[in-house]
Amino acid sequence: MLQYQALNEYKAINYARKLRNMFKTNAELVCEEIGDGNLNLVFRITDKSSEKSIIIKQALPYARVVGEAWPLTLERARIESQALNVQQSICPGFVPIVYLYDSTMALTVMEDLSSHLIMRKGLVTRECYPHFACHIGTFLARTLYLTSDLALPSQMKKEKVVQFSNPEMCNISENLIFTDPYFASETNPFNPLIADKVVELRENNQLKLEVAKLKEGYLTHAQALIHGDLHTGSIMVTKESTKVIDPEFAFYGPMGFDIGAVIGNLLISFASHEGHTIDLQERMDYQAYLLTMIEQIWTYFEKEFRDLWEKESKERMAVIPGFVDHYLLQILVDAAGYAGCKMIRRIIGLVHVWDMESIDDPSLRAKAEKLALSIGKELVLERQQVQRINDITSLVRQLTG
Amino acid sequence: MLQYQALNEYKAINYARKLRNMFKTNAELVCEEIGDGNLNLVFRITDKSSEKSIIIKQALPYARVVGEAWPLTLERARIESQALNVQQSICPGFVPIVYLYDSTMALTVMEDLSSHLIMRKGLVTRECYPHFACHIGTFLARTLYLTSDLALPSQMKKEKVVQFSNPEMCNISENLIFTDPYFASETNPFNPLIADKVVELRENNQLKLEVAKLKEGYLTHAQALIHGDLHTGSIMVTKESTKVIDPEFAFYGPMGFDIGAVIGNLLISFASHEGHTIDLQERMDYQAYLLTMIEQIWTYFEKEFRDLWEKESKERMAVIPGFVDHYLLQILVDAAGYAGCKMIRRIIGLVHVWDMESIDDPSLRAKAEKLALSIGKELVLERQQVQRINDITSLVRQLTG
Repeated sequence: MLQYQALNEYKAINYARKLRNMFKTNAELVCEEIGDGNLNLVFRITDKSSEKSIIIKQALPYARVVGEAWPLTLERARIESQALNVQQSICPGFVPIVYLYDSTMALTVMEDLSSHLIMRKGLVTRECYPHFACHIGTFLARTLYLTSDLALPSQMKKEKVVQFSNPEMCNISENLIFTDPYFASETNPFNPLIADKVVELRENNQLKLEVAKLKEGYLTHAQALIHGDLHTGSIMVTKESTKVIDPEFAFYGPMGFDIGAVIGNLLISFASHEGHTIDLQERMDYQAYLLTMIEQIWTYFEKEFRDLWEKESKERMAVIPGFVDHYLLQILVDAAGYAGCKMIRRIIGLVHVWDMESIDDPSLRAKAEKLALSIGKELVLERQQVQRINDITSLVRQLTG
Repeated sequence: MLQYQALNEYKAINYARKLRNMFKTNAELVCEEIGDGNLNLVFRITDKSSEKSIIIKQALPYARVVGEAWPLTLERARIESQALNVQQSICPGFVPIVYLYDSTMALTVMEDLSSHLIMRKGLVTRECYPHFACHIGTFLARTLYLTSDLALPSQMKKEKVVQFSNPEMCNISENLIFTDPYFASETNPFNPLIADKVVELRENNQLKLEVAKLKEGYLTHAQALIHGDLHTGSIMVTKESTKVIDPEFAFYGPMGFDIGAVIGNLLISFASHEGHTIDLQERMDYQAYLLTMIEQIWTYFEKEFRDLWEKESKERMAVIPGFVDHYLLQILVDAAGYAGCKMIRRIIGLVHVWDMESIDDPSLRAKAEKLALSIGKELVLERQQVQRINDITSLVRQLTG
């Protein structure tokens, strides 16, 4: 195909048939469009006889969540496939394998992960993932450290900054995470039962000042190739395995943004369980489990990061005593702030999350949402006081009280 | 000419003759190579009958200061001409006019500023420049503010980050300013009479840690299109006029780096007068004059920056109370730190400066160099305590004592 066209299930099968070394001639292919995201088409193509399957993910020239009125670059398909390749090379087995990237069609053919579940859904049903903290901590440390100035020759890093320049997708995050939630707008729906809290938050100048500072960091701090959208909907899990998907927001940004995305979304799950009607003890146990998971993620991250610093540093100044400690503390402080921003935007911004939306009763949902807002707000405001990961989890415990 | 070749005076005249609308046919052209820089050829071509003149600045494929063993990208000629155009459009009259950029020849034909003097030389002979503080303060505010995320639409700024990606030139600064001076090396000559201070400084882990943080900012903080080498050798002056030249190190970096370059180099001049044999009162008067100039530069900068913030902000978060104050304070703190780094590298790094080199007596020069080192060190170490520009000048007064 010489020109871009959006696939449908029929065309996706035809496309898949033409792929080399993928399916046998005359394989009985079936196709299902499974995209529940906001921006793309996602087709799963399965050979019914062999059960072999692939994913074809195609970018649409507009944001699916809003429609054709919001045009959006197809470049994000390139960014995504290239980011997946970088991540695969740095941290093999933690992202889907890319079989093919087709720039004309703005699509990527990749490994099917249908044995895995979107983590956000598993968190709603209080699943446990015993290896997740180790997996994601390691993934974060390796992908962030090894794409930064610490590990790459100065000129190579700058080439990658150019390669992963991602203006349109960054602009979405700038608006949806750091700006829109703080101004009254029809594009920011929220539960009417939390209206007082929303007003209060939008009048909190200290909070908005801190969000402005965090936005400045997102706009300017080209520290590492970050995933850029690492919420629990971009993570697929089994008990044994963790796969990070959808890096179409990838660009050179602050390391703390990715770590904050993971922490913030686990804390959204934490808060959501205040609103799910379950046994009190069961809730408290699962909430405690999530906080322990957050502590473990940071612990694994820090250990791997320090190992890499010790063994893989190209930066000559890395040998200076105290630099790694300072660097890690800045990441942690940033992560706390970005976690807070991510929590707030999911409650009062354009795109809400299943953790909360799965609570039918609006007043129960309001209870959970208020807790998420208050945790988010305090993380943003108090992040400079954070010295270790337990300062974050302690703050959450206090606010849950 | 279809292929790059380095010009000589004869070839430069031939090149100039072929330029459209520049000189009359059969004009009597004379040429002088006036490059006293470290990286380029600079030819002045004058029509003897009309006195009309131009500059042809050509990049060499190696660093002139070291020789052909240090190859260097010709891309810097593009960066320089494009940066001059941006600066001219934002702050007309403060940079030489670009008549032509020739990518094949890696050269820029530009306005001759022979009526102006390199400022560094004027400072050695204790000249006064009554408009300089206003000029450079305004230039800094306009070029930095108007190329930042504050003033540019988010996507346009990111396009400019790519356009001005400048890996090779940045790498020079990373090494010469932020790394090499802190490690013993033959490429770091210094006056043997200050050897004890150099050893002391290289063993100061607290200082090196702060330099490492400042280097991280230089590597990652893509805040504005900075000049990147704004020392007093990149500024040409008359009593009435100020021209900023040579932006071949331009890239998206921290605003404080440019301001720090100006302040740091004025403070090198300040310190150098400790070593020049002149009347005590005269020295003290001129040193006081330089400190007042630094205070005025910041005052003009801040005033213009606040004006622009008020009138030209595209960033929606700019309206948040306190954001401009926070932003300016961060710039000032950065400027103090970068000023310190710039002072240190000129005393114990690869490229020294005329302020000091013009002091013949090594022991007098050592006195001046020690003062420069001690001011530089304290600026780096104490920058987080700086709240206003007078905190910087007070610190200098104390150390001079």
